[in-house]
Amino acid sequence: PKENWKEPLKVEMQFILLSILSVVEKLQTVTVYFLVTMKWKNVFVTWNPQDFCNISKLVLPVDTFWSPYIIIYEQVDEEKSLSRPFLTITHTGIIHTTQQHRVTITCSLEMHQFPFDTQTCLMTMYSFMNLAVDIILESSQTTEEVNKQSQVYHLTNGEWKFTNINIISVTESMKLLSNRFALLPQISMKRRPILYVLNLIFPTCALYLLDMAILFSTCSYGDKISFQLSLIIGESVLAVILKDILPTSSDDPPVIVIFFIGVFVLMIMGVLETCLLMQLKKK
Amino acid sequence: PKENWKEPLKVEMQFILLSILSVVEKLQTVTVYFLVTMKWKNVFVTWNPQDFCNISKLVLPVDTFWSPYIIIYEQVDEEKSLSRPFLTITHTGIIHTTQQHRVTITCSLEMHQFPFDTQTCLMTMYSFMNLAVDIILESSQTTEEVNKQSQVYHLTNGEWKFTNINIISVTESMKLLSNRFALLPQISMKRRPILYVLNLIFPTCALYLLDMAILFSTCSYGDKISFQLSLIIGESVLAVILKDILPTSSDDPPVIVIFFIGVFVLMIMGVLETCLLMQLKKK
Amino acid sequence: PKENWKEPLKVEMQFILLSILSVVEKLQTVTVYFLVTMKWKNVFVTWNPQDFCNISKLVLPVDTFWSPYIIIYEQVDEEKSLSRPFLTITHTGIIHTTQQHRVTITCSLEMHQFPFDTQTCLMTMYSFMNLAVDIILESSQTTEEVNKQSQVYHLTNGEWKFTNINIISVTESMKLLSNRFALLPQISMKRRPILYVLNLIFPTCALYLLDMAILFSTCSYGDKISFQLSLIIGESVLAVILKDILPTSSDDPPVIVIFFIGVFVLMIMGVLETCLLMQLKKK
Amino acid sequence: PKENWKEPLKVEMQFILLSILSVVEKLQTVTVYFLVTMKWKNVFVTWNPQDFCNISKLVLPVDTFWSPYIIIYEQVDEEKSLSRPFLTITHTGIIHTTQQHRVTITCSLEMHQFPFDTQTCLMTMYSFMNLAVDIILESSQTTEEVNKQSQVYHLTNGEWKFTNINIISVTESMKLLSNRFALLPQISMKRRPILYVLNLIFPTCALYLLDMAILFSTCSYGDKISFQLSLIIGESVLAVILKDILPTSSDDPPVIVIFFIGVFVLMIMGVLETCLLMQLKKK
Amino acid sequence: PKENWKEPLKVEMQFILLSILSVVEKLQTVTVYFLVTMKWKNVFVTWNPQDFCNISKLVLPVDTFWSPYIIIYEQVDEEKSLSRPFLTITHTGIIHTTQQHRVTITCSLEMHQFPFDTQTCLMTMYSFMNLAVDIILESSQTTEEVNKQSQVYHLTNGEWKFTNINIISVTESMKLLSNRFALLPQISMKRRPILYVLNLIFPTCALYLLDMAILFSTCSYGDKISFQLSLIIGESVLAVILKDILPTSSDDPPVIVIFFIGVFVLMIMGVLETCLLMQLKKK
Repeated sequence: PKENWKEPLKVEMQFILLSILSVVEKLQTVTVYFLVTMKWKNVFVTWNPQDFCNISKLVLPVDTFWSPYIIIYEQVDEEKSLSRPFLTITHTGIIHTTQQHRVTITCSLEMHQFPFDTQTCLMTMYSFMNLAVDIILESSQTTEEVNKQSQVYHLTNGEWKFTNINIISVTESMKLLSNRFALLPQISMKRRPILYVLNLIFPTCALYLLDMAILFSTCSYGDKISFQLSLIIGESVLAVILKDILPTSSDDPPVIVIFFIGVFVLMIMGVLETCLLMQLKKK
Repeated sequence: PKENWKEPLKVEMQFILLSILSVVEKLQTVTVYFLVTMKWKNVFVTWNPQDFCNISKLVLPVDTFWSPYIIIYEQVDEEKSLSRPFLTITHTGIIHTTQQHRVTITCSLEMHQFPFDTQTCLMTMYSFMNLAVDIILESSQTTEEVNKQSQVYHLTNGEWKFTNINIISVTESMKLLSNRFALLPQISMKRRPILYVLNLIFPTCALYLLDMAILFSTCSYGDKISFQLSLIIGESVLAVILKDILPTSSDDPPVIVIFFIGVFVLMIMGVLETCLLMQLKKK
Repeated sequence: PKENWKEPLKVEMQFILLSILSVVEKLQTVTVYFLVTMKWKNVFVTWNPQDFCNISKLVLPVDTFWSPYIIIYEQVDEEKSLSRPFLTITHTGIIHTTQQHRVTITCSLEMHQFPFDTQTCLMTMYSFMNLAVDIILESSQTTEEVNKQSQVYHLTNGEWKFTNINIISVTESMKLLSNRFALLPQISMKRRPILYVLNLIFPTCALYLLDMAILFSTCSYGDKISFQLSLIIGESVLAVILKDILPTSSDDPPVIVIFFIGVFVLMIMGVLETCLLMQLKKK
Repeated sequence: PKENWKEPLKVEMQFILLSILSVVEKLQTVTVYFLVTMKWKNVFVTWNPQDFCNISKLVLPVDTFWSPYIIIYEQVDEEKSLSRPFLTITHTGIIHTTQQHRVTITCSLEMHQFPFDTQTCLMTMYSFMNLAVDIILESSQTTEEVNKQSQVYHLTNGEWKFTNINIISVTESMKLLSNRFALLPQISMKRRPILYVLNLIFPTCALYLLDMAILFSTCSYGDKISFQLSLIIGESVLAVILKDILPTSSDDPPVIVIFFIGVFVLMIMGVLETCLLMQLKKK
Repeated sequence: PKENWKEPLKVEMQFILLSILSVVEKLQTVTVYFLVTMKWKNVFVTWNPQDFCNISKLVLPVDTFWSPYIIIYEQVDEEKSLSRPFLTITHTGIIHTTQQHRVTITCSLEMHQFPFDTQTCLMTMYSFMNLAVDIILESSQTTEEVNKQSQVYHLTNGEWKFTNINIISVTESMKLLSNRFALLPQISMKRRPILYVLNLIFPTCALYLLDMAILFSTCSYGDKISFQLSLIIGESVLAVILKDILPTSSDDPPVIVIFFIGVFVLMIMGVLETCLLMQLKKK
């Protein structure tokens, strides 16, 4: 669509995040739903509106003219075709297209601070086969505008709370992709920890509190051991919940596991202490 | 299909909800199955039935003529192709088409009142590329008619009970979609809470009742603690059920969790109280 | 394929159920696998076998000639393409086609009598766009023949036991579908309850029997309470199994839940009674 | 591809089983991955290699010439397209094609002997529309050769151990399919029971042994009942495991369930006996 | 694309592993995401850049010219189409193509050392229909280079840690595939065992330690048995976790199961011993 094929074509892109659909920790994938708007000029498609009953805008299927073919480097699943794409062309040759995308990308999810974690996923949207001399991808918005728009259009309100989008600057993208332009939205999202706290951390603390109360009570040693063993069984049941939630995805275990194991060890040491005291008393 | 391209085309739409197939709280998506009937006039497709052996109606594949391309803004999954679409054309140019759709939409599900919640999901069906000057989408039914028809045709009777459809008025849709017409059915549905009540709320209450009975009984303190710990283990087992049911999707936890945690705290405080009394008595 | 377009075309259909693949109570869907054979006459496709080396039968891809387009009203999932369809044409113009279908339909599943329930699902196979004046769909078999054939060809032997197919009469279908013909097989199937009985009902009864034995035994009141609480924990564990099995799909709960809850209540009342007796004795 | 259309075409087939991918007891389906090689002669595709620079073999896409269309009667899921198919043609007209298939078939799985069961699944590969007068399908291997080759190429080593393939003879297939030829490989496979034994049967036996030890020990009756109830709770936890494993797919329950229930009954009778003895002693 | 069809075409291939997406032990499948770059010379596609405004490189859809059709022998699932493929052609006829692949392959997973296992999966990428006389597939990198590049581009950091890729030499591939060339990357990956250790091995050891402490303590025999039974119930709860994790895929059970069963046996023998001692003491 260029008159002079030596000059690169400038494509302006807009990115609006609509929804974070799912985050699968086990597979380290994130599914997002977003809108991408592209705008470029095709110098060969111009007309004089006066010649055509003042029609200055046309809507056509996307195959009618050349359009940039953008791929996402991190994408690992087939894209779902959500709608047939259309182009809008004005009489000056400006082409405009908006498409809905639902993409599953890989993203290195760091589980260390689970369930208080914030994840950041980078999407590399670029034209694989075209170098910078052929195509220039540009974000037509600043990071602030992307954020504002995504906040307005954001549809869902699930486990993950979308916090921020950061559009990485062109110069950085040039370095990363060996002289190619790219749109690099970096999505930050925060997990809502409330149910994990209520389901796991709170009961663990409560059981430990009880354990302490029993340890320092004046029951007989035999009763103490019996009570403490009951609490350890209760803690095992909670371990079943924990196992279902946690993916095994990192070398250093999440803080919540350390905390859980710590409480477990303390409880067991409580029983051992009681046994020891009983032994000593007998002697 | 318009003689005068400056006048917008009027498309009458009918919406019948057939089934609410699934509601996934974790992903905040709802899958619905519905019929959409569209009716418009193509002034270029008319004929005189007398010339063609009195044939006044034809059934043709949908690709034969132009038809409005409607997209659903909230749709996040590929649409399943349920049947090949056909058009019915009468000799006066009135085109009629009915299509089955099975669509997964995102919908902000509010879990605060779980399991007594009522969810409301909006579907925005509009012609993305055509502004109001080109196309006018109109619901040919009132909200009451849509409701009546959907109640008649409704097929299933699952966890969610379809309660109401509200067709949002044209003027509102114009505001929302920057001067585009849209059909905006808003589906309300109520969860049937009976099994959640029987599986979770009732046993929790029963265990708490038992806890109270034991607390005010005349057993020895040692026995009391032992019994109360048994009940706490029973409550932990119920927590496993609760965890499987509840999605972690909101900032403020569901009422049922608060209730559950409250009972848990009261039980633990019962044990602590018994320990304290035992201590005091010893002294 | 009609010489006189005013007369309706008669299509004879045969239905053979091959397998009930899955029944998802939560989504209220049933997946069935069946064969449909259609037979009609195309008066324009006839030849004299003597002119063509005595060839009196041809096998051709299904697109070569017009064939009736049948849709299933209850279908909610994309049909899986199991095999490329073919037609058999004889020299007299009789066209014959057999196709394998694997279809997921919605079906209102009534869980009240679970696990002793029998479900009945209706499939409405009709030509959506053609009224009775154009096409007549006829079952070429009686209900008895369909049953016999389906019993012979039935492949699997899973949780659901296919019991009966009832082909609903033409006159009724005319009423239902506003003057359209349809093939309406109504599939009845019975759940095999044996594992549910062994896993849930039997252990519940056993635990209740034990509870009674303990209640009327001569243990001390403290021991009695302790034993009864153990049994209540055992019952809670069974509740976890129950929850996994039962879908939350109806307003009135399944009988099995009522039974389970009843036993639970009786057990808890047993404990309360023991507490009361102990109290009275003390006084 | 036949010169004389009255003579049937002979197609030689080879079957190599590559992998048993999954066996879903609940749905009664088996997914297998295999290679099928077909070889036939097309008398119209011959050439003299001397005329074409000694090229005596060509590789062409499968659509170039007619090829037999084989369907699998038991197939219930869409076939995954694993690779684009090609034909190899030699100058004498011999056509050769090898295709990878991944097919899900229904298979009546008998769970009675679980987990020591051996399942046998039959695949009926035939040309649905062609009778024996048109096409002859022949296995070019004996059953022994199929077995040997499948053992060599077999890729995985999962829960199911492929034991044997039996190619059913032509005369039998003629009877089954109303005068059609078919390739009928019958795959036998054996479940590896080791983990089921270690997870279920062994702990059940161990708990029962303990129960016996306690029954004949010299504890007080109260203690005995308390210990036996603990064991019954342990057994209930194992029942949760059992329920997850077992599909509810047959009228007569698996032996393992009978065994499990038997042990459960014996344990409960142990408790009842202790209660009775205590009662008698009191008197 | 060869001038002399008797000489084989040389295709240089590059393999970069991007991500190990999932390992399903039960089905014995591994899903990997990788890039393959192919480079070959098409002698019929050359031009003089001076004649075409100095254009020396073109980007074209992959269908424009012949390209080698590579299949993966172990692939068992449909390949997801991640991006439309393009070719880059230089004026000397060198064709270059890079494609993203997401492939599910079968791989014999050895579970014996679970959770400390390292799995090795071989992918056989070859041109099924072309023998060595027609096509030569060559890796343009050494094993070291493949490793280095894959480490740089590797995207995720999940349960499996990619450790090594080994490109198997040409001579070996010739033997395996009856005179065909193939690219044979062999991917090694190590499971991160930390969560399995913390969830299963550690609690088992802790419970066993407690068991020992109780066995050698000075409690009464009745109390001892009661405590030991509590620990056995706790161990049963852990068995539920173990069962969810372990696939039943091998003849010899994983070491972790042997360890678990061993601890269970020791615990039960502890109880039996206590019973025996009590018996002896009584006498």
